Amino acid sequence: MRFSSLLKALQMGDAGLLWSNPGADPPLTGAASLELAAADQLSFLEKGNALSSELGQSCVGALLLPDQQDLIDRASQREIPFAVFSDPRLAFAEALDQLVPRRRPPAEIHPTAVIDERAVVGAGTAIGPRVCIGAGSCVGANCVVHPGVVIYDGVLVGDGCELHANAVLYPGSHLGRGCVVSANAVVGSEGFGFVPTAKGWRKMPQTGRVVLEDQVELGSGTTIDRPSVGETRIGAGTKIDNLVQIGHGVSVGRGCAFAAQVGIAGGAQIGNGVILAGQVGVANRVVVGDRVIASSKSGLTSNVAAGQVVSGFPAIPNRLWLRCASTFSKLPEITKTLRELKRNAPQ
Amino acid sequence: MRFSSLLKALQMGDAGLLWSNPGADPPLTGAASLELAAADQLSFLEKGNALSSELGQSCVGALLLPDQQDLIDRASQREIPFAVFSDPRLAFAEALDQLVPRRRPPAEIHPTAVIDERAVVGAGTAIGPRVCIGAGSCVGANCVVHPGVVIYDGVLVGDGCELHANAVLYPGSHLGRGCVVSANAVVGSEGFGFVPTAKGWRKMPQTGRVVLEDQVELGSGTTIDRPSVGETRIGAGTKIDNLVQIGHGVSVGRGCAFAAQVGIAGGAQIGNGVILAGQVGVANRVVVGDRVIASSKSGLTSNVAAGQVVSGFPAIPNRLWLRCASTFSKLPEITKTLRELKRNAPQ
Amino acid sequence: MRFSSLLKALQMGDAGLLWSNPGADPPLTGAASLELAAADQLSFLEKGNALSSELGQSCVGALLLPDQQDLIDRASQREIPFAVFSDPRLAFAEALDQLVPRRRPPAEIHPTAVIDERAVVGAGTAIGPRVCIGAGSCVGANCVVHPGVVIYDGVLVGDGCELHANAVLYPGSHLGRGCVVSANAVVGSEGFGFVPTAKGWRKMPQTGRVVLEDQVELGSGTTIDRPSVGETRIGAGTKIDNLVQIGHGVSVGRGCAFAAQVGIAGGAQIGNGVILAGQVGVANRVVVGDRVIASSKSGLTSNVAAGQVVSGFPAIPNRLWLRCASTFSKLPEITKTLRELKRNAPQ
Repeated sequence: MRFSSLLKALQMGDAGLLWSNPGADPPLTGAASLELAAADQLSFLEKGNALSSELGQSCVGALLLPDQQDLIDRASQREIPFAVFSDPRLAFAEALDQLVPRRRPPAEIHPTAVIDERAVVGAGTAIGPRVCIGAGSCVGANCVVHPGVVIYDGVLVGDGCELHANAVLYPGSHLGRGCVVSANAVVGSEGFGFVPTAKGWRKMPQTGRVVLEDQVELGSGTTIDRPSVGETRIGAGTKIDNLVQIGHGVSVGRGCAFAAQVGIAGGAQIGNGVILAGQVGVANRVVVGDRVIASSKSGLTSNVAAGQVVSGFPAIPNRLWLRCASTFSKLPEITKTLRELKRNAPQ
Repeated sequence: MRFSSLLKALQMGDAGLLWSNPGADPPLTGAASLELAAADQLSFLEKGNALSSELGQSCVGALLLPDQQDLIDRASQREIPFAVFSDPRLAFAEALDQLVPRRRPPAEIHPTAVIDERAVVGAGTAIGPRVCIGAGSCVGANCVVHPGVVIYDGVLVGDGCELHANAVLYPGSHLGRGCVVSANAVVGSEGFGFVPTAKGWRKMPQTGRVVLEDQVELGSGTTIDRPSVGETRIGAGTKIDNLVQIGHGVSVGRGCAFAAQVGIAGGAQIGNGVILAGQVGVANRVVVGDRVIASSKSGLTSNVAAGQVVSGFPAIPNRLWLRCASTFSKLPEITKTLRELKRNAPQ
Repeated sequence: MRFSSLLKALQMGDAGLLWSNPGADPPLTGAASLELAAADQLSFLEKGNALSSELGQSCVGALLLPDQQDLIDRASQREIPFAVFSDPRLAFAEALDQLVPRRRPPAEIHPTAVIDERAVVGAGTAIGPRVCIGAGSCVGANCVVHPGVVIYDGVLVGDGCELHANAVLYPGSHLGRGCVVSANAVVGSEGFGFVPTAKGWRKMPQTGRVVLEDQVELGSGTTIDRPSVGETRIGAGTKIDNLVQIGHGVSVGRGCAFAAQVGIAGGAQIGNGVILAGQVGVANRVVVGDRVIASSKSGLTSNVAAGQVVSGFPAIPNRLWLRCASTFSKLPEITKTLRELKRNAPQ
């Protein structure tokens, strides 16, 4: 694909093409990061990007740039074809869709799939080998269900969803449109609810269900539990990375992003636009306000007000935590100073 | 189901029905938490339950209450049918089993299951589509094996177990009666044992096995490794949440509860009735006494005596940790005070 | 197998047989740890091994010992047949392979496997029931692919690999020779890359691939993501435990060992021979030098120089951390002392 054709396509996108200098209009076959890119590959830079120093040596075929004069000058100088975007990262995302179009399996139902006669599969949907779909379940139109996926009874999957290999949807799960469930993820398993009795732990039946609203994505191996009653709900457009645990009865707002190995305990309520970094934990029933950001490994043991940036365990405001954490490594010195002061103190 | 019929059933249970006031004896079709419950739904309250303030507005159809006069008075006043139990949470668990009976697949072996001719399947057991059972394995009576489960060779599964979709049992695994293995959980994979050599890591063969005693439950994506020799053993009635890792050669006592993302390293010995909250870690060969409670994210790096409540990393007694953690956030102040004292100190 | 025959086999190995005293040359049927070993079982001790006190009572059939006189004396005294090795742990590993030979399924393709006609399977490879192999994928010679494994399109699997039940390899994944992928592990799922836009998170297409070099082993439930462009690469001989997350674009060197529940964020670069203990986190783009050791639960938020041993979060040198962590539990005392000093200080 010629660079100019790519730019024509990107003009229809959301990345804000400002102007371009396609130079020799090279044919592009793919993309790479700047330091590795070859003459038939596209790359991009953002404002403040650490890779911009590579511009002097790069063999890249064409570049998507921000509106930043020094980068434009250097690209011009080296006669690298380029285009300037309001959001070059978004432009790169859109370009990748053009350069490496997603392959879609044909809209067929593989003969080895086991689909209950009381289940419904929408038009244009591809069902891979060895998929199981239970009674009363309904998979919408234009979905892709990869091999080995197990859909229990009474599950609803909206249009345009992609379910990756060996993912499991328990009874009653409800997925909106355009959701992605990655390999080996589990939606709707029983919440961890047990009642202590004289005879040991007695299971609290988990009769609720999990709802994923539109455009939710779940990473590989991620698990979302259903509650004893009511719902566990993940809001529209929320993206969840690999090996994340969402407990029973949790509600998550819209447009959140949770990195890998996050764990959210039962009944927590997470607002909209919340970002949780890797290995963060949120305790039972904690309420996390809109747009909260929690840095990696932090543990939210009590409610966090909207807009806060928190860190540490128990989580405190990020700026305070940074100072505390740097003081932590001076604790031996502090103790020593204190001992000296005490020795010399007037009694 | 009428409230009175439900109460008749609960009378046979373990929750201790004290007395009841079934009022208009409403028909119940399900259950919900108090603030969401509709007129055909059951709910419950416990002593000290934060939801009790909802009692004034709730549309709930009927209530299970503790023996607490103010709750009883308020329910009476609003003419909500109710019953009083010694353990209303347990009553609610028993009620859910009545109101939402668990559906059981018919006791059939699906024709797409691949069962070795040297394997045995007990009476009354349901084997779903695409299940694989290896040579010499034996699945007991009245089990449910959901689609896609893989049972390797030489596995024993006791009566009344439920194995959820795509779970995997490695060779030699031994499950007692009434165990539950949730979706994508793995029992008996190779312990992480490697010997450092001049040529790199050399695998220590993992020839042992995993034993789950009766009534053990494993969450989705949880992994239990087998050891090089001997056993990894999980005691009767122990409940384990999602994405938990149990290392090779670990022994866990009876009646424990481990929350999600707990990790227990090789050779650790966990007593009876131990509770580990989310994301807790236990180091290699650490011995944890009976009834220890470790709060979330704590790391047990040395032995913990029976009955202790510990927190933090490395774990220390919970009360001490609470004070230390609250002081942690004052470290910048402490440093400042110390600097002032030092400046003013007699030299 | 007689002890003397076992020793004959071990003589060909790498463990350095120094000399032996096979005594009555007992027949051995297996192995166990010293305190549990029976008369037909082998065991071993290492220098400084805590189990050496068991030597007085053990019923073990034969022992592999280090060149340590007191152990040799005690074994001789109790007339336990023994052999002395430079590396008795390695000898034990080699002995287990002799005593408990690994069973290998026959090199057949199960009729229920679904193999695309454009896929290639090498000679001597066993393909289990319900395995799926996509178009253009190539599985090498002498591999074992267990039931339920899903191999998407365009995957390369080298000779002698073992893929355990229900593991998933996404498109383009490339495995070297002798790799092991444990049950339910996922190789090559989409990296967690989203571009923030006015309309919410926009997926950054993940067009790169994952490369596992020779002899890489992945634990159960472990997930390795592919990047938007380029590679995620795991170096030869690196061993990874269960439920580990490796983000997109990470590069890991040779001969590393990562314990369970480690998480490595996108773009991090890990050197050779790095050891990460359980639940360690490495932040985005952090560079970790060769032979670094990070103790459990530590979080590497900035670059770590080669050879360092680090602990804590944020990670600091291990020795410093040990002192800081022990001071942490004295924070309430420190505060008290400080308050007293302040009260008594000259104003």
